[in-house]
Amino acid sequence: MSRTQIPNEAYAPTGAWYVAALSSELSVGGIVARTVLDHPVALFRADSGQVFALEDRCPHRFAPLSSGVVKGDSVQCPYHGLEFDGTGACSRNPYGPVLRAATIRAYPVEERHRALWIWMGEQGQANPALIPDFGFLAEAPDTAFSAGYMHVAANYELIVDNIMDLTHTDYLHAGSIAGTGMVHKVKPFTSEFPDRIEVCWFAPDVPLSPFHSQIYSSLERADQLVRIEWYLPGIMKLTANFMPCGRPEEEAFSNTNAHFITPETKTSAHYFFAATRNYSREDIKLNAFIAESREKAFATEDKPIIELVQNRMGSGDFWKLKPLLLGVDEAAVRVRRRLEKATREEEAHATPRGSGF
Amino acid sequence: MSRTQIPNEAYAPTGAWYVAALSSELSVGGIVARTVLDHPVALFRADSGQVFALEDRCPHRFAPLSSGVVKGDSVQCPYHGLEFDGTGACSRNPYGPVLRAATIRAYPVEERHRALWIWMGEQGQANPALIPDFGFLAEAPDTAFSAGYMHVAANYELIVDNIMDLTHTDYLHAGSIAGTGMVHKVKPFTSEFPDRIEVCWFAPDVPLSPFHSQIYSSLERADQLVRIEWYLPGIMKLTANFMPCGRPEEEAFSNTNAHFITPETKTSAHYFFAATRNYSREDIKLNAFIAESREKAFATEDKPIIELVQNRMGSGDFWKLKPLLLGVDEAAVRVRRRLEKATREEEAHATPRGSGF
Amino acid sequence: MSRTQIPNEAYAPTGAWYVAALSSELSVGGIVARTVLDHPVALFRADSGQVFALEDRCPHRFAPLSSGVVKGDSVQCPYHGLEFDGTGACSRNPYGPVLRAATIRAYPVEERHRALWIWMGEQGQANPALIPDFGFLAEAPDTAFSAGYMHVAANYELIVDNIMDLTHTDYLHAGSIAGTGMVHKVKPFTSEFPDRIEVCWFAPDVPLSPFHSQIYSSLERADQLVRIEWYLPGIMKLTANFMPCGRPEEEAFSNTNAHFITPETKTSAHYFFAATRNYSREDIKLNAFIAESREKAFATEDKPIIELVQNRMGSGDFWKLKPLLLGVDEAAVRVRRRLEKATREEEAHATPRGSGF
Repeated sequence: MSRTQIPNEAYAPTGAWYVAALSSELSVGGIVARTVLDHPVALFRADSGQVFALEDRCPHRFAPLSSGVVKGDSVQCPYHGLEFDGTGACSRNPYGPVLRAATIRAYPVEERHRALWIWMGEQGQANPALIPDFGFLAEAPDTAFSAGYMHVAANYELIVDNIMDLTHTDYLHAGSIAGTGMVHKVKPFTSEFPDRIEVCWFAPDVPLSPFHSQIYSSLERADQLVRIEWYLPGIMKLTANFMPCGRPEEEAFSNTNAHFITPETKTSAHYFFAATRNYSREDIKLNAFIAESREKAFATEDKPIIELVQNRMGSGDFWKLKPLLLGVDEAAVRVRRRLEKATREEEAHATPRGSGF
Repeated sequence: MSRTQIPNEAYAPTGAWYVAALSSELSVGGIVARTVLDHPVALFRADSGQVFALEDRCPHRFAPLSSGVVKGDSVQCPYHGLEFDGTGACSRNPYGPVLRAATIRAYPVEERHRALWIWMGEQGQANPALIPDFGFLAEAPDTAFSAGYMHVAANYELIVDNIMDLTHTDYLHAGSIAGTGMVHKVKPFTSEFPDRIEVCWFAPDVPLSPFHSQIYSSLERADQLVRIEWYLPGIMKLTANFMPCGRPEEEAFSNTNAHFITPETKTSAHYFFAATRNYSREDIKLNAFIAESREKAFATEDKPIIELVQNRMGSGDFWKLKPLLLGVDEAAVRVRRRLEKATREEEAHATPRGSGF
Repeated sequence: MSRTQIPNEAYAPTGAWYVAALSSELSVGGIVARTVLDHPVALFRADSGQVFALEDRCPHRFAPLSSGVVKGDSVQCPYHGLEFDGTGACSRNPYGPVLRAATIRAYPVEERHRALWIWMGEQGQANPALIPDFGFLAEAPDTAFSAGYMHVAANYELIVDNIMDLTHTDYLHAGSIAGTGMVHKVKPFTSEFPDRIEVCWFAPDVPLSPFHSQIYSSLERADQLVRIEWYLPGIMKLTANFMPCGRPEEEAFSNTNAHFITPETKTSAHYFFAATRNYSREDIKLNAFIAESREKAFATEDKPIIELVQNRMGSGDFWKLKPLLLGVDEAAVRVRRRLEKATREEEAHATPRGSGF
């Protein structure tokens, strides 16, 4: 725990890899300030190209290092010039010898899949092998790749819920990025695996929405298949395939997207997303059209509703508010249970607070 | 109580008709989101023309129905498409049979006097006969009628106070809509009735203010009579009459206005107002002049002061702050006592909270 | 204590002179609303020219007097017209005889050194002789004087800290108003006196910064001497002298500045500053250049960092957050201890709260 933290009921596991930023947010010498699980973090890319994450508070006078500058492989505090390297150790003290005690917390960071992954739990337990394989993001050419970031004033689980139940696209996105408007007519199939939960919708022989007709001009009707894979805590892959009716998935116009959702506080989250596709991969205009349509829908349709849901829930706990769950909520509910289990188990194994007093 | 409510000391009676909106705010198919006594409410006008009020939170995933659309006599949730009719019953479930358990609270609504009245108490006790007669509003031609709405960041009683003591017009509105500036020189007469409290000021043979000279160009001096009628909880009629000196009230240039004040939260309120008159009733320019002058005075004179009063009171209770009351406060104090009595009596008769535990 | 105050741990002494405003903020008939130590205060300059400070809340209906108007030697409440003189006594009641009970708290005010000093403690203990001598401010001609005001969303001690350790200028102001960039290379000398704490930096034979080269065009290198004097609670004099190398202080280009820091709340402060100089005292362009450079640096460099420090400290107490202090913090730490002692001693001698119950 950072020294600023007030002990409180945990709302997410800390022993997990979260996406703290997109790789593209940090060029050499760049610094990003981002709060993750209530901890202010300064992410910086050193001259070596490596990215580090430090507690964003100088131990001297509590200034945010993220307002400073990168000096070689260290970051310099903007206020009085102390420097800290990527391990959190003081690497320069302008006023005398480097002080051993002047250390700050460093968070393990891994750069993978065009994203910066941060580990918020015990440092020794950070195992990069736990990062799910989203290699498709790095493999896509730039002309078939787009990514974005959105701040959402809502608990991260509400964003996960949003994606785990794609029937919302038939209503919330009816006038924008909805696929066929037929998702709510078919039954989803949910499967649990040790490392993930999958949910799948298959709508055969359905007419395309105006939006999708622009993209797949050769299709009038299609078999629509949507598959979502969720990994702890809010790492999600969404595949949306449109096949000529009756044809196998291999012939699909296929979109493989990533949704990375990271809690900022109990009631706010960082939402990173990225899209790739297997068709017209050199078409830069199409790429921009898809990116702009998605950004607009997310910003003007998903974000306002999810934030209003948080508003309507107030400080109430999801289960205590007794949601009236439907069959389509199965996948989202399984995810919530998995998240709750991971969070509670971690709390149970944690060193009791204040035990030394 | 809505499920989101945290039990707290009541600050207004719930068993009362409040104005939730002006009729003109809702055309067919329209929805208005408005919080009344801490309860988020979705008001919508069905295709039949009737207005309904529902708890503004879908029981499924807690999205605000007010962000949805009207479908016939129901409102459709914007998020996943559940529909609810005016009784609060689920009228359509896109994912299967309609669920009996999927009901939300419906609030009785009456449309009268160009306004939408909502009952926040026990549904069975809602008696439309309790709505005071403000028929003069509907009877006025459009060219002698104007209305408006203002959000005020203050407890609703501070706005009631403001109108119960019109001496403030001599100071706060000295440069704008003040009548004669002589209100503070005469003693008000207060009368209590079972259903209302009245207060009246009579200032004989006084010069008109520049503002009123523009309206009553035939008068140089006048007998000014102002009468206020207050009904529970914040329903007020204000009559301002200007008579040629010594002439009876029947010969007055008479303005009859309504002030409807509805608590949003303990420290914020909805303020609806409407004005009618018995002279120059076809004069559309005069109508606009009166409306604009009033809106400007309310927005730039009353609202800032009332909000600063709330600010200066902080979280302190009015009586505990020991106001230094003057004779002119008599009517306002009687209203405060009536409101407190109604609120306390209701609490006393309510089912004890948690009694089943 | 004003009636609005919630008892809380004191964060500053009340028995002290604070600067509430610059003299220039109040012309005859002018009113300024300013919260000092959580107390809303209305400062007004009467027709006589004298400045008074009253609790900014009418005892009648709690309207802020600062929204009213000055009438002779009184201020008139904007809401219902009660008037109060500089002693806090009601001087006019439009509705009847003046009420003896209608008094509000008056705060002792002294106008000195182009500033308005307010005493927030027991009225009988206000001794103007305790105001430090900042006579140099009034003595400077207008063409060698500039002053400003800035609101800072941080505890006042963080601003005092900022000035007590001028090494920050080498980093925070490196591209703007830094002197030589050499302050951090020399050891500061701290001295304690009964009424003040002084800290001094002497950097011999250093090159001038681009900013200072513009001001002292005759110098290429200089001996830089900076001296800060702190008086309770946040009254500070800063002298920055630039001497031709090896020459005595009497030959310096000398800047004598004032920094007056007044707590608004526990986490916000009023920051007044003023500058004078002993060279080019008729140069109105230079005067403006210095004022504008300082305002820009304060607003875009100091204010953001100090506010972020407050943000990073959260609600944590400075000492409990265990700052890693360096030698250069000596003066600031001594000031913090002096402030803490003054605050705690005052609490210890105060009438116990609630003792009469």
